[in-house]
Amino acid sequence: MSEKEKVSEEVTETNEVEESTVDESTEETEVVSEVDELKKQLEETEDKFLRARAEIANITNRNRNERELLQKYRSQDLGKKLLPVIDNLERAMNSEVTDEQSVSLKKGVEMVLESLRQALKEEGIEEIPATGVAFDPNLHQAVQTVPASDDCPADTIVEVLQKGYKLHDRVLRASMVVVAQ
Amino acid sequence: MSEKEKVSEEVTETNEVEESTVDESTEETEVVSEVDELKKQLEETEDKFLRARAEIANITNRNRNERELLQKYRSQDLGKKLLPVIDNLERAMNSEVTDEQSVSLKKGVEMVLESLRQALKEEGIEEIPATGVAFDPNLHQAVQTVPASDDCPADTIVEVLQKGYKLHDRVLRASMVVVAQ
Repeated sequence: MSEKEKVSEEVTETNEVEESTVDESTEETEVVSEVDELKKQLEETEDKFLRARAEIANITNRNRNERELLQKYRSQDLGKKLLPVIDNLERAMNSEVTDEQSVSLKKGVEMVLESLRQALKEEGIEEIPATGVAFDPNLHQAVQTVPASDDCPADTIVEVLQKGYKLHDRVLRASMVVVAQ
Repeated sequence: MSEKEKVSEEVTETNEVEESTVDESTEETEVVSEVDELKKQLEETEDKFLRARAEIANITNRNRNERELLQKYRSQDLGKKLLPVIDNLERAMNSEVTDEQSVSLKKGVEMVLESLRQALKEEGIEEIPATGVAFDPNLHQAVQTVPASDDCPADTIVEVLQKGYKLHDRVLRASMVVVAQ
């Protein structure tokens, strides 16, 4: 508004050369409206710039989070595929052997199984505790129930049929369990 | 433009006070320098905005590439740790067994080994071809040499002492080989 007032003040003070006054004043007004237009453009551009800056911050944060998640859970797929390998090696370890060759072979396989467990552990993959703990539907899958007793109160796990595994906080495979009820 | 015309009309009707012409001119110059200043600011802000936009494009591309690499080589660490597991299982498979228990146990372990190889293959981890191929220092590590002959021309691999593995195009472990020279 002050801009406008200034113009009208100027206008009241102009001289008497009729023709040139018109030119001069027109030019002045053009300059004033150019100022307004430039101010508007500057404001818009500053706004766009600030939004772009905010977007950069958002993208950077989002990407850092994505990268951290990818890194944290990178072994999920391979880890999942190794669970049956562990199951089968453990099954082999449970077979009764008596002769010398078998005992030696079994001993070798047991060491391999231990190094496999260690490799998984280093990547954050560990067995879900199940034996003797309270049943947790997020970690355990009940496939069978038995009546609760003094020894086995309701909602405690009586037996683990298949071991479960988690990768950090994520369940790779729930434990298959028998629960007292 | 109609605004302008209106102003110039007003101007033609104003009075003749001389003095004011100097003031007017100064003010006009101020307005003009404001225009220049605004133009400069606008240009700078537009420049900053364009650079922010370019940065967004760069960050987005860089992050996509990083994500793709993380995804592609995600199994590198766990895969590397599994190589001794495979070595040891293969060693167990090479032991001579004759009695019934051992043969059965060995058969079981062989199936496990096969499923382990399959899991690694699905993640892009495969054995580096070595037997009978030309020696490649990017894939093979020569630990021993034998004199070249008609059967074994120079620079061909005669024997593989330890299998090598790669994850896609990346070598996880070079093959340890004997080369004809």
